[in-house]
Parts: sequence; structure tokens; C-alpha cells
Amino acid sequence: MKRARVSFVGAGPGDPELITLKGLKRLREAEAVIHDRLIPQELLAEIRVGAEIIDVGKAPGRECPGQGHINWLIVDAARRHRRVVRLKGGDPGIFGRLAEEIEAVRAAGILFEIVPGVTAVTAAAARAGISLTERGTASTVVLSTGTSHTGTLPEALDWGLLARVEGTLAFYMPVGSLDAITSALTALGRDPREPALVVEAAGLPAERVIAARLGEIGERARAVGLRSTALFISGPTVAAASVPVAVRRVLAQAG
Amino acid sequence: MKRARVSFVGAGPGDPELITLKGLKRLREAEAVIHDRLIPQELLAEIRVGAEIIDVGKAPGRECPGQGHINWLIVDAARRHRRVVRLKGGDPGIFGRLAEEIEAVRAAGILFEIVPGVTAVTAAAARAGISLTERGTASTVVLSTGTSHTGTLPEALDWGLLARVEGTLAFYMPVGSLDAITSALTALGRDPREPALVVEAAGLPAERVIAARLGEIGERARAVGLRSTALFISGPTVAAASVPVAVRRVLAQAG
Repeated sequence: MKRARVSFVGAGPGDPELITLKGLKRLREAEAVIHDRLIPQELLAEIRVGAEIIDVGKAPGRECPGQGHINWLIVDAARRHRRVVRLKGGDPGIFGRLAEEIEAVRAAGILFEIVPGVTAVTAAAARAGISLTERGTASTVVLSTGTSHTGTLPEALDWGLLARVEGTLAFYMPVGSLDAITSALTALGRDPREPALVVEAAGLPAERVIAARLGEIGERARAVGLRSTALFISGPTVAAASVPVAVRRVLAQAG
Repeated sequence: MKRARVSFVGAGPGDPELITLKGLKRLREAEAVIHDRLIPQELLAEIRVGAEIIDVGKAPGRECPGQGHINWLIVDAARRHRRVVRLKGGDPGIFGRLAEEIEAVRAAGILFEIVPGVTAVTAAAARAGISLTERGTASTVVLSTGTSHTGTLPEALDWGLLARVEGTLAFYMPVGSLDAITSALTALGRDPREPALVVEAAGLPAERVIAARLGEIGERARAVGLRSTALFISGPTVAAASVPVAVRRVLAQAG
């Protein structure tokens, strides 16, 4: 009997065509799939008939398993199946609680691999038509979490340092704390006129791209009623963004 | 006649199976492909017969076109073909000179899109078996260029700030300047005992993963003779790296 292997697979940022060939291959081979809510639902149709599918995502009005329980579900699946896929939105190693799941799998003596995916920030930039780096203006890109445990401003971040970064700042899932993030950055010295973007549901039919100055984007985002699957980008390369006409119309109404 | 469109496509980090489904689709539809050297060569076999293929990569002993010339080649191809792919290693928007190419295409009035790809840092972390973020220890990931125009330490970076980042630091293409990078970081206060990694040719047969303390990794990398397609990662989550046995052997000989 071959040993079980858990594949942590990045499903990409939402568009089902942005999974990798390797990720799709692993998904099709899987005997058990444990997936988040934030994965393209079309991918579930690729799982073979008879495979065990476990949804561990948060959903309104539904209890979702805690991280400890998810870790246990992965290990348990690997004891009952040879090919287990843990399917995660974006790239598993960027704000995906991967470290904790790997530790659980390793402690149980189970083999694992990581199949990287397209992380949300690159998809958001792609949809806005911008590069995240540029010679001379952005030699650094900083990725930070936009939500804390409690849904407020992430207090673990060094806001004074972030305000001083010469380059591109990106925050994952900033919706509940967008005003707090932009206020912290500008209060600590970042130029409120810096071009900024919020990209919601990048690459999906519900996509919205909101462009404004750093000092105004919190208000703009509130006016259009952002939901949770958004990404916030601020920095000099954002100036080149080409915002779709439909969104400009939303902004004109909101502004 | 339909208007021409240039698709800036991320080929992923080297393993040909790490291109996205959408990227591969664009490549197969293309009438002209302009590609870098650092793309999986297997992907060129996916281009249809009769398509124009232009290699603009650097290679030893060969003149390579400057960025201005590459911009011109893209615009020129879009004037002669309807479906043009600009194939770039990793993700096009991260250290890929994308801003300059978009500006040229936009100035010429040509439609474009960006198809994001798996960026090198996530592939490197995946091969080393680590997450780039972790609750409580790494809420921030900083991506920086590891080489300047002249191949020396990138002077545009704020080294004092990078030394103080609580989280994960990643440098793209650091080979010529690895000693300078690690010295700058530790001289400005970063702990030389922090766990660090260099991943060369992630996911390819020639892959090598070198793990050491931040204060020692420059010397280790020199001892094994790194080449240019490497990535450098330093931070608390690196401690969990599972370095393959073959590399441990290389290290034992080198150390």
C-alpha cells in the first residue's frame, strides 16, 4: 500500500481558469478534497465521482469548523485515503493558515506537497491593468493582512514602517478595516494623494474596480458597498490603472 | 477585421505545469509570441505551427534587445497579428518590466490584457515546504528586487526599513548581491540567526534548496555555486523548511 500524500493546492484568485495545470491534475486525482469557501465553485465539478468532498468554509448562518478542527479533518482524510487535496483560495502560502495545517500533517507523519497558485494581489493588479513593480518607483511590494482575528485593524502590523515604504502596498481582505488602514497610513506620513485601488471579486462577473486617492478611497468603497472578497493596493504604479467604464459610472453616482 | 489584442501572460516559475489554464489557452491561440528566456521551454511546443516566435531573452554570448526594442517588437507584432502573447516568467506584474511594456502598447492604441501567473516566491516557498505568512509571526511579506541595473546591491531599497520588517523578506534574483543583501540587513539590526533559504530553479530537475542562518547563507550559497535563477527568503516561517536530502548532502560537503 502506497503512503498517503496531502497536496495543498492553490485554486487561484477566483476565475476557474486561473488554477494551474498541476493543481487541476491533483484535484482530478484526489480521493478526498477539503476546500475553503473562497474557491471557484466550477472546480468542484472536476472532482471525480465518489470522492469525499468536505467544505470547511465560512458561510452566513452556518457554523464553520475552527482551524484545529480543519487540521484534524485533513489528517483524518489522509488516514483513510491515499490522495488528499487541501484546496485553498489564491496561493496556499499567502494568508492561508498553511503553516498550521502543515504542522498538523507533519506531526502525524504524513507526506505532503504544496502546489502554488496565483495569489490575489497579482490577479487584482492584472484586472486593473497595472504592474505592481516599476524600475525607479516601486522596487518593493509589501503584502499585508487587512483583517485581524477580531475583524479590526491588524495591530500586529508596524504602521509607521508601512507608511514609509517606497513602493507598492497591498492588503488582503481589508473590507472591514479599509478606513482604519488608510487613516493609519496617512496619519503616519503617507501621501493622501497617492493613487489607490480596491478590486473586488477580481476576474469574476461581480468584479468591481474602485480607483481613488489614498485619502479618499475608504469613503468611495463605503459608498459602493464593498463585500469581503476584495484587495486593496496603493502606490505609484497604481496611477496607470485603467478602470472599466462600468465602474467609472458607479463612481460618478457615488461621488 | 477585429482589433489586435496583446495578452501579457505569466508563464509561472519554471515548472511547465505551473502555467494557468487561461495562460495556456492564450498561448495556443497566439499568432505571435514574444518570450523571455526564463520561461519553461516546453511551453514553446504549445504554440501553433506557423505562429511567429520571438525570443527576447538574455543568453550568454548573444546580444539581447534592450527594453525599448522589446516594446517596439510587441507593438509591431500587434500591428501585424490579431492575437499577440507576451510571455513572461512568473507573474508579469512582479519584477517583469510590465509597466514599460503596457505604456508602449497603450500609447500605440492597442488593446491589452494581463493574465496573471504564479510568482517565483510562492513556488520557492512551496518547494521548501513553508508558508510565507503565519498568524502571530508573519503578517507581512515583502518582495524586493535582488539586483540593480548594474548587478550590485539595489540602492533604491530602504535597507533600514527592510531590516526592521517583522515578517518575511523575499528577494528576486539575488545571486550577484546575496552577500551584500545579508550584510546590509544584519548591519542594520536584523538578527543574523534568523532562518533563511535560497531556492534555485524551483520545481525543475536542477532545483537546489539551501537553508542556513541569515548571517551564514551568503557563504553557503557561494560554496555551492549558485546560478542566477534563484530566490532568497528570510523570516520566522522559514524555520519550518524541510530541505530535501540531496541538498543536505551538498551542504554537508560544502560546510
